[in-house]
Amino acid sequence: MVLKKVVIYDTTLRDGAQAQGISFTVEDKLKIAKAVDDLGISYIEAGNPGSNPKDIEFFERVKEIGLKHAKISAFGSTRRVNVPVEEDSNVLSLLAADTPVVTIFGKSWDFHVDAILKTTLEENLKMIYDTISFFANRGREVIFDAEHFFDGYKANPAYAMETLKAACDAGAAGICLCDTNGGTFPDEIFKITSGVIEEIKVPIGIHCHNDNGMAVANSIVAVQAGATHVQGTINGIGERCGNANLCTIIPNLQVKAGCECIPGDKMKELTSIARFVSEVANIIHDERAPYVGGCAFAHKGGMHVDAVYKTSISFEHIDPEMVGNKRRILMSEVSGRSAILKKINEVDSSITKDSPEAKHIINKLKELEHQGYQYEGAETSFEIVIRKLLGKYKPFFNLNEFKVIVNEPSVEGVNSSAMVKIRVEGQVEITAAEGCGPVNALDNALRKALERFYPEIREMKLTDYKVRVLDSEAATAAKVRVLIESTDGKDVWTTVGVSTDIIEASWKALVDSIEYKLIKDRSL
Amino acid sequence: MVLKKVVIYDTTLRDGAQAQGISFTVEDKLKIAKAVDDLGISYIEAGNPGSNPKDIEFFERVKEIGLKHAKISAFGSTRRVNVPVEEDSNVLSLLAADTPVVTIFGKSWDFHVDAILKTTLEENLKMIYDTISFFANRGREVIFDAEHFFDGYKANPAYAMETLKAACDAGAAGICLCDTNGGTFPDEIFKITSGVIEEIKVPIGIHCHNDNGMAVANSIVAVQAGATHVQGTINGIGERCGNANLCTIIPNLQVKAGCECIPGDKMKELTSIARFVSEVANIIHDERAPYVGGCAFAHKGGMHVDAVYKTSISFEHIDPEMVGNKRRILMSEVSGRSAILKKINEVDSSITKDSPEAKHIINKLKELEHQGYQYEGAETSFEIVIRKLLGKYKPFFNLNEFKVIVNEPSVEGVNSSAMVKIRVEGQVEITAAEGCGPVNALDNALRKALERFYPEIREMKLTDYKVRVLDSEAATAAKVRVLIESTDGKDVWTTVGVSTDIIEASWKALVDSIEYKLIKDRSL
Repeated sequence: MVLKKVVIYDTTLRDGAQAQGISFTVEDKLKIAKAVDDLGISYIEAGNPGSNPKDIEFFERVKEIGLKHAKISAFGSTRRVNVPVEEDSNVLSLLAADTPVVTIFGKSWDFHVDAILKTTLEENLKMIYDTISFFANRGREVIFDAEHFFDGYKANPAYAMETLKAACDAGAAGICLCDTNGGTFPDEIFKITSGVIEEIKVPIGIHCHNDNGMAVANSIVAVQAGATHVQGTINGIGERCGNANLCTIIPNLQVKAGCECIPGDKMKELTSIARFVSEVANIIHDERAPYVGGCAFAHKGGMHVDAVYKTSISFEHIDPEMVGNKRRILMSEVSGRSAILKKINEVDSSITKDSPEAKHIINKLKELEHQGYQYEGAETSFEIVIRKLLGKYKPFFNLNEFKVIVNEPSVEGVNSSAMVKIRVEGQVEITAAEGCGPVNALDNALRKALERFYPEIREMKLTDYKVRVLDSEAATAAKVRVLIESTDGKDVWTTVGVSTDIIEASWKALVDSIEYKLIKDRSL
Repeated sequence: MVLKKVVIYDTTLRDGAQAQGISFTVEDKLKIAKAVDDLGISYIEAGNPGSNPKDIEFFERVKEIGLKHAKISAFGSTRRVNVPVEEDSNVLSLLAADTPVVTIFGKSWDFHVDAILKTTLEENLKMIYDTISFFANRGREVIFDAEHFFDGYKANPAYAMETLKAACDAGAAGICLCDTNGGTFPDEIFKITSGVIEEIKVPIGIHCHNDNGMAVANSIVAVQAGATHVQGTINGIGERCGNANLCTIIPNLQVKAGCECIPGDKMKELTSIARFVSEVANIIHDERAPYVGGCAFAHKGGMHVDAVYKTSISFEHIDPEMVGNKRRILMSEVSGRSAILKKINEVDSSITKDSPEAKHIINKLKELEHQGYQYEGAETSFEIVIRKLLGKYKPFFNLNEFKVIVNEPSVEGVNSSAMVKIRVEGQVEITAAEGCGPVNALDNALRKALERFYPEIREMKLTDYKVRVLDSEAATAAKVRVLIESTDGKDVWTTVGVSTDIIEASWKALVDSIEYKLIKDRSL
């Protein structure tokens, strides 16, 4: 089969930066550009030098990092109304960015020309023509982003087409049709894109927003209509409901629709690059995201779990390894025997489904779940339970006692202190620490006490802390479940604790987390 | 224009419950059923009584809450291989659930019959026929969920169609085509659904999963192909990447595509109901969600903000008020002034939109929201803020200090004690109490201290306690938001507190709750 080539154009650093809560430093932008290039994406739209002075530094420094696949593009508007293009300050900053590719956005919707630009339809066509020919004449590859193209086409198709023709006449190397407000339906995208492709002879691209929840589908149907260039962002970050998510579109097209978007051997890096970008952008990675989320191949319902063990395609649309993700069987009483056995076999491969040990562990799991434990997403704590039940567990320390004191009013923002007394092979350590709140104080004190015996604890840190109140109608005497996520830079693991007391629940999860680090480092 | 009727079928309580991290109590399920019914949705699939004994209690209790729009459905599988339908225990539990609607899922993909059920294609058809006719003969409205229908149709279209015909012959009132693995593309959904509708004469529905990020688009194109029944969940919660999101599909169809899904006057409640369900499910509401997310109409880019001020449709696909959401300008935080004014007028009816007091309160609200407060669902605490700012607040007591001590190991299940010292009009009371956990001890001590002055506090009790960790990447030093729900048998009210310390956050919410009770009883 001949693969259809689809050029991927990433705008995480420009349109993605418009998202609420995103604020990239130049360092962040360089890191993301490198990651996007590593994925084998063809174009990186990295900023708008006319509106953001920080971007100028980026464009200088990105030249030094030696990208292997991607061409860098700078983004900017058509010249201002009635201003000669050579005198327009934004156009000149865009030129100064000195990028091989320049993307010019201009108006395609007559209503916008009238209501926002407040000029004539004729002048808008000149603005497009002048700006694109300015850059084309200077040897740049110019892409025209036709803003609000679909809304414009629906309002006044003849004028919308004229804007594209002005761009072509001026020497645009490609034209991208934008659904700027994100409200267009797939059938409209298909029909309008097909019509454009019949008339316009440069490559056509698609740029969608997710305001109607259909940005990915709209991008896909545009490719089916003949578009060969797709714009979007990593993880779909972007203004309002986000841009089209490249982490979904790329595997949809390449794994499932016979297209080539990135080099085939790069597909396995998709999940880790998606997570890396979330990390750099300092947003919580969407675990429910298609292909690259932690839940994307996680199975919980018992029937599904059994079927996936029999044959994975029964409840998976692709093999998770193709995109560098993995299957997870969520440990829960509904997930059934076979899932639990697999986890047991990671600790002891000799145990079979019918061994008394397996039955014992399954009964214990049910009992713990009844108490409010939940091991889906906290498999580490479940592994420790298995080790304890199989006699493959030796505690690294014992608790003699702890005491946590919370004082109000607080002194200089610190209101909690904790005293911890532990025992490690006959040696007793007692120490104390302070913190913001009782759990933080307890965490600090326990680590301080243990570091003398296990200095590698310094490598680990807690990265997430979640509290869920169980049977909350009992109000402040309710049971709570605490989940703690930890990392040592190499691995990430999650542990769980349950108690009517949040401090005790946190303590249990903390202890599991530290023990797992110690077990792991000793390859026990 | 004649609106096309589309029946909405909500499976938040069944398929939604398969999502990672979701664990509904019967109380939660009743609350969500009531909210979904309030939105005017036609069907609620509420559980699988054969696989979850907790659901049986739900089906009994839901009869008492008097739903206005929705019919309740119980969900279950076709009978087991080679077991007479009257003897199948799952079928019998489904019958015992005593619901007006029964939804039976069965295999439509020949591969699943062979590899998972391990039976003949013929026996699978009999399983479908027997199970559906069993319920149809007993007067139930039966819907057949054709599992993996699209994958099945692509593999063996003739057999996939035979399974639907078996369901029709058995008396199914409707058939729902399921994209169980969530991997089908919109053009395939359109083509296959159109083909089914030509041959099958009962109403056809669509049930999509989001593994390729196109569940919403797939549901929409199925309706365009002639489907008249759409299954999905509130906020798209569900196994793996989730189910089709009804909070996107309903406005897509009703606001933009000339369909009627829910009564027109209910559309304005969409955002608040979506948030309510996130709250009950104890998941973080997706702020980027189309229509109902906090970012859905949030504008950040300078040009967009300017344009939206000139005319909002320039960068908004619909008016946010249509779905009960609101526009947010992130640069200059203009929140819903009129909503706030309404709340202010409950305390002082003389204040107008332009009074300096109104501006002062709005500024304070922004500052508190910035700190992590959120008053949606905790208006009581906001009312107390307003009272404080308007000088209509006199504290009922002052805190001198408190001290909470947590000891491990615990003694007889009690591990926490709290000492509280308060002042009421010059009189000092110091007392102490114990509890399960520090918050419970503090709550007990504060009430004990106050009861001498305000005996009516005995009438009130806390009925719910929720903790949410804000910016959780800071792990155990993260900020937490505590919500406390209280009742005195006559009213129910919710208060909120935020702090890096869970004890302090709980204290703030507790104090607001008690003060509100005292304000209310004095009709201040």
